[in-house]
Amino acid sequence: MAGNSFGTLFRLSTFGESHGEALGGIIDGCPAGIELDIEAIIKEMQRRKPGQSSIVTQRKEEDEVQFLSGIFEGVTTGTPIGFIIPNTNQKSNDYSHIKDTYRPSHADYVYEKKYGIRDYRGGGRSSARETASRVVAGAVAKQIIPQIKINAFVSAVGEITLDKPYQEIDFSKIESNAVRCPDLELAIKMEEHIKEIKKQGDTVGGVVTCVIQNVPIGLGEPVFDKLHAELGKAMLSINAVKGFEFGSGFNGAKMKGSEHNDSFNEDGTTKTNLSGGIQGGISNGMDIYFKVAFKPVATLLQKQEVLDNKGNLIEQQGKGRHDPCVVPRAVPIVEAMAALVLADFYLLSKTYL
Amino acid sequence: MAGNSFGTLFRLSTFGESHGEALGGIIDGCPAGIELDIEAIIKEMQRRKPGQSSIVTQRKEEDEVQFLSGIFEGVTTGTPIGFIIPNTNQKSNDYSHIKDTYRPSHADYVYEKKYGIRDYRGGGRSSARETASRVVAGAVAKQIIPQIKINAFVSAVGEITLDKPYQEIDFSKIESNAVRCPDLELAIKMEEHIKEIKKQGDTVGGVVTCVIQNVPIGLGEPVFDKLHAELGKAMLSINAVKGFEFGSGFNGAKMKGSEHNDSFNEDGTTKTNLSGGIQGGISNGMDIYFKVAFKPVATLLQKQEVLDNKGNLIEQQGKGRHDPCVVPRAVPIVEAMAALVLADFYLLSKTYL
Amino acid sequence: MAGNSFGTLFRLSTFGESHGEALGGIIDGCPAGIELDIEAIIKEMQRRKPGQSSIVTQRKEEDEVQFLSGIFEGVTTGTPIGFIIPNTNQKSNDYSHIKDTYRPSHADYVYEKKYGIRDYRGGGRSSARETASRVVAGAVAKQIIPQIKINAFVSAVGEITLDKPYQEIDFSKIESNAVRCPDLELAIKMEEHIKEIKKQGDTVGGVVTCVIQNVPIGLGEPVFDKLHAELGKAMLSINAVKGFEFGSGFNGAKMKGSEHNDSFNEDGTTKTNLSGGIQGGISNGMDIYFKVAFKPVATLLQKQEVLDNKGNLIEQQGKGRHDPCVVPRAVPIVEAMAALVLADFYLLSKTYL
Amino acid sequence: MAGNSFGTLFRLSTFGESHGEALGGIIDGCPAGIELDIEAIIKEMQRRKPGQSSIVTQRKEEDEVQFLSGIFEGVTTGTPIGFIIPNTNQKSNDYSHIKDTYRPSHADYVYEKKYGIRDYRGGGRSSARETASRVVAGAVAKQIIPQIKINAFVSAVGEITLDKPYQEIDFSKIESNAVRCPDLELAIKMEEHIKEIKKQGDTVGGVVTCVIQNVPIGLGEPVFDKLHAELGKAMLSINAVKGFEFGSGFNGAKMKGSEHNDSFNEDGTTKTNLSGGIQGGISNGMDIYFKVAFKPVATLLQKQEVLDNKGNLIEQQGKGRHDPCVVPRAVPIVEAMAALVLADFYLLSKTYL
Repeated sequence: MAGNSFGTLFRLSTFGESHGEALGGIIDGCPAGIELDIEAIIKEMQRRKPGQSSIVTQRKEEDEVQFLSGIFEGVTTGTPIGFIIPNTNQKSNDYSHIKDTYRPSHADYVYEKKYGIRDYRGGGRSSARETASRVVAGAVAKQIIPQIKINAFVSAVGEITLDKPYQEIDFSKIESNAVRCPDLELAIKMEEHIKEIKKQGDTVGGVVTCVIQNVPIGLGEPVFDKLHAELGKAMLSINAVKGFEFGSGFNGAKMKGSEHNDSFNEDGTTKTNLSGGIQGGISNGMDIYFKVAFKPVATLLQKQEVLDNKGNLIEQQGKGRHDPCVVPRAVPIVEAMAALVLADFYLLSKTYL
Repeated sequence: MAGNSFGTLFRLSTFGESHGEALGGIIDGCPAGIELDIEAIIKEMQRRKPGQSSIVTQRKEEDEVQFLSGIFEGVTTGTPIGFIIPNTNQKSNDYSHIKDTYRPSHADYVYEKKYGIRDYRGGGRSSARETASRVVAGAVAKQIIPQIKINAFVSAVGEITLDKPYQEIDFSKIESNAVRCPDLELAIKMEEHIKEIKKQGDTVGGVVTCVIQNVPIGLGEPVFDKLHAELGKAMLSINAVKGFEFGSGFNGAKMKGSEHNDSFNEDGTTKTNLSGGIQGGISNGMDIYFKVAFKPVATLLQKQEVLDNKGNLIEQQGKGRHDPCVVPRAVPIVEAMAALVLADFYLLSKTYL
Repeated sequence: MAGNSFGTLFRLSTFGESHGEALGGIIDGCPAGIELDIEAIIKEMQRRKPGQSSIVTQRKEEDEVQFLSGIFEGVTTGTPIGFIIPNTNQKSNDYSHIKDTYRPSHADYVYEKKYGIRDYRGGGRSSARETASRVVAGAVAKQIIPQIKINAFVSAVGEITLDKPYQEIDFSKIESNAVRCPDLELAIKMEEHIKEIKKQGDTVGGVVTCVIQNVPIGLGEPVFDKLHAELGKAMLSINAVKGFEFGSGFNGAKMKGSEHNDSFNEDGTTKTNLSGGIQGGISNGMDIYFKVAFKPVATLLQKQEVLDNKGNLIEQQGKGRHDPCVVPRAVPIVEAMAALVLADFYLLSKTYL
Repeated sequence: MAGNSFGTLFRLSTFGESHGEALGGIIDGCPAGIELDIEAIIKEMQRRKPGQSSIVTQRKEEDEVQFLSGIFEGVTTGTPIGFIIPNTNQKSNDYSHIKDTYRPSHADYVYEKKYGIRDYRGGGRSSARETASRVVAGAVAKQIIPQIKINAFVSAVGEITLDKPYQEIDFSKIESNAVRCPDLELAIKMEEHIKEIKKQGDTVGGVVTCVIQNVPIGLGEPVFDKLHAELGKAMLSINAVKGFEFGSGFNGAKMKGSEHNDSFNEDGTTKTNLSGGIQGGISNGMDIYFKVAFKPVATLLQKQEVLDNKGNLIEQQGKGRHDPCVVPRAVPIVEAMAALVLADFYLLSKTYL
């Protein structure tokens, strides 16, 4: 219980169901004196919101954030920033067909077993709509650490994979296409694949890669609150995530130490960066990079067998407007969670004498 | 700062450097009335301790735990369990050669930059010796949740990989060999590979797989404290870990929803288990399984270029007794951290009305 | 920073300034399945709200709470309960006269020094208006622990003191008068005194006593999170509070052990209750009772010397509608904070094996 | 559960029973680079330890602290400081007579009811012996904030009260007498009173006053983690404490606003200091002062009726060596807890941009 807060000094608490009155949250611990760039926040929300392209869900959600406190004459006051995002598009009757049934690989069943009750409309609290609040807070967090650059992008859709090292990526191309893949040729293939999958009423998984640059040396608090452990938790807390690796990741497990060690330069930077910018749980000033695996969305616009609350298996046809592939819209969410982690550790790092 | 505690209701705090007086910790929140099986705790420590076979470090560390409180006449009293593990084998002069140098891909450099000072002997706080305290606490945690079965094993050493689905694994074979790989043919290959690597003065990475069975439905606290998010953080907080995936993991990112969805049986169990026992961050009663990637140990018994604290690159020969491959000894550590997470969520689950 | 959350398992986070868009909060960790009595919540808010009698501030604040999440068809779902209380009566121009000045014994000066900026309208975050969110959460908390009875009342206004032991108090009389003093003769004197004080443009302090009955044995978590330590923190976090004592309190410091010890009855209850229902930080099943001292409100409708932000002392006449005595409206706030503490410890107590 | 940690950034966790192997703790979050004055730590422990004068318990406890980690060549390293205080004087047979009985106003009964088991030897975890760990950590905390001066002293023993305002106190006299009362005439009276009480086999309560000077403006985190709320919790967590008041305290509740408000000087200091150095939960740079009420020790060397675990009331004669009055030895404990609070808020205050 009480699992809806994230962070220690810069802390986000969120609330809200897919089809309730509103989502929202409280950002506590935001330093005073920051002239908030509201446009930048809105821009991040638009990157996440449905309906932005033909390969994402066509649901109409306005995702308009209203700040209720903590900002005075455009400047943060150090007091908690409360905000809400009204749900303007609740058509509850859309969901009556799932009231008594549990869809495979959804959270329906476990919510009902855990809590004894669930708001079944649109997935309720388990809906990815919840991440809208994370994006708001992440956009505020980014403004606390403007020197740190966070760029996430789609590096795989299904089997189509961007294999280049991140150093060869042109981040300016990320937003140039609906998939958010910076390799434009691959982006076209991915987009076509997603359209094909959508046509089948099916869905497909993918991978988001995130690169964080200009990180000061010294962020992270061993032994449990290592920088990559918090980043990992942050990413794994996003809907549909099945894996996290940083630096050499799972591939590093295949290597020998003589290949894997990052030799120093005289200034303390390293010649290679298989460490992924973190050693011993503490940032070393090199680029941080990690990958986040997303499973395919569970809601299919095909017939599927569902379980009802009387223990019968029945066939059901998925309805509504759903993402055939979640990764394009996951990009800003990954960045937001990374920003929350970094802002928190950045503030923590200021407490050293 | 203050990053040395793990857990909410069942909370471990640890202290200790590799070559200080002692390691140790406090287990707070252990329920009263548990007749502690001390032998079981000792057994777990022996699985982790150095010198247990020819393929692990030959350092002599007795790793004898002394319980100082919280236990009365063999039974837990509900008060904090303090314990220490004396360091009996501190030969500090072994380490004078690294006093002023930073070894590649070690935590030397970042500790010095972050804290301005470091206990360089044996890696100090960044040494994996710290995990001895985790194993003690994990062995206590296991006794809170005896019904839950946690089995970890080595599933890869370098390129040698155990590809079988976990359902086909005979856990009783894990402890039958020095590598802790339940496939005995592969175990021999892995052991030979590690010996070869050791002969080269090199090291190699590997993967530990963990399977958790008989988990009650309902553990995990969305949206941030999802069960797999805490498991991921727990694993990523272990030394040398570069990646974590559960259920279908990174492979799931390549799949279609129609392949990935776990169809229900009438009793609420599922026919497949690509979800890995967790849906929406909450256990669904199916087996939980995940993989943890470990990089190769950074300390090589070869010449390497190190950086000194004056900015010079100099050649240095690694000394001492180090693990050529960390995964055999990581198996009980992975289990311990899993037990900490599950015991905590188990206690949390009892708070529901 | 991040000081706007209270509780561990049942946790309230709040936001909001006196004259911002809205106040509000998130109640995280409320168990699922509670059919919320919304009328009871509204009733608590009406006890707190301004304008309810002639001896409290005549500000018009509707204090209407809107629940945004966590409740489905009238029942709690176990997910966070977000709520807002819109500020309908913000007349910001009322406060321009204090924009550049710091009033004595207000938080104006320290907020500006700490944060470098403050929302000066109506005291901003330091306004007691913030306690409206506490009353909402407290009213929810009371419904988790319906068996526990919490009754607070005014036991002193200035020098006028209700000296009776709490056992002789008829709690049903508390709400019968505007002062919320259960002794009706004293209530009249207190009310007259407050009116007299108000006429002078002055203010006066007072004491609230709280009695908690039917508490199960065993609440409280030594050694730091003792039940009375959390109650004390809860009370001291309320605006204008200067002191907290429970059981024998400061008077107990004058006594001898032979007078102070509470002798047992055979059933484990005690003949006297100088312990105040708590021993060693743990409830013993006897009534808990404590007193909370409130200083006089700092805002006077008299001329006072204030400091301006250029270091000048200038005379200023207090304006607006303020409470001449805070304790009548503090009664429901004290109860709410007590309920938050007890609900949290109650849920914690369920984690014991 | 898990109530044995205190603080956020500078966090103490403790363990240990009166008659176990050892007490001890972990100080996590201590900044690196502090050359620890071990003598100063020992000195604080000697102020707390039994047997230091004829008016305190004559138990022989050496209270020797052993630091096990976090300090390298005399300097803190930023890693957790583990320490133990061995119990060298456990004569368990002393306590067999209380094995099956619950003494009035002790924690015996509630520990047994809460946990189902208790270490009855010497009070176990509920013994004030636990505060030895607090004094160690407090002595470390003082060295983080050397500019801040913390002076506690005995201001009442039974009815004998030091009524002078703290501004007239000569703190250098505190340690000149066994009672730790800076008024030497009163000190003699108090000492005689304690001896008289002791002769009767009785005990007596008292009050400790604490004054904190040179506090920077801005410490404290509203709305819940107000500086005085944390100080109050800290003090109320000490054994035998029944009340806490700061600044004008309970007396302030009797005053009018026109009397109570602290008028400003031009430099932002105030002419009076009824606020007690804290406004709106934030330090204003003036002296912080507060009083802590201690009840008389429950263990009497007289016959008393106790309850046995079969529900019989029987007479029992208290044995052993106990404090007739706890306040002289409570002085360093009050200071230690104050130091923990201030060090934590001081570190927090460094996180502001």
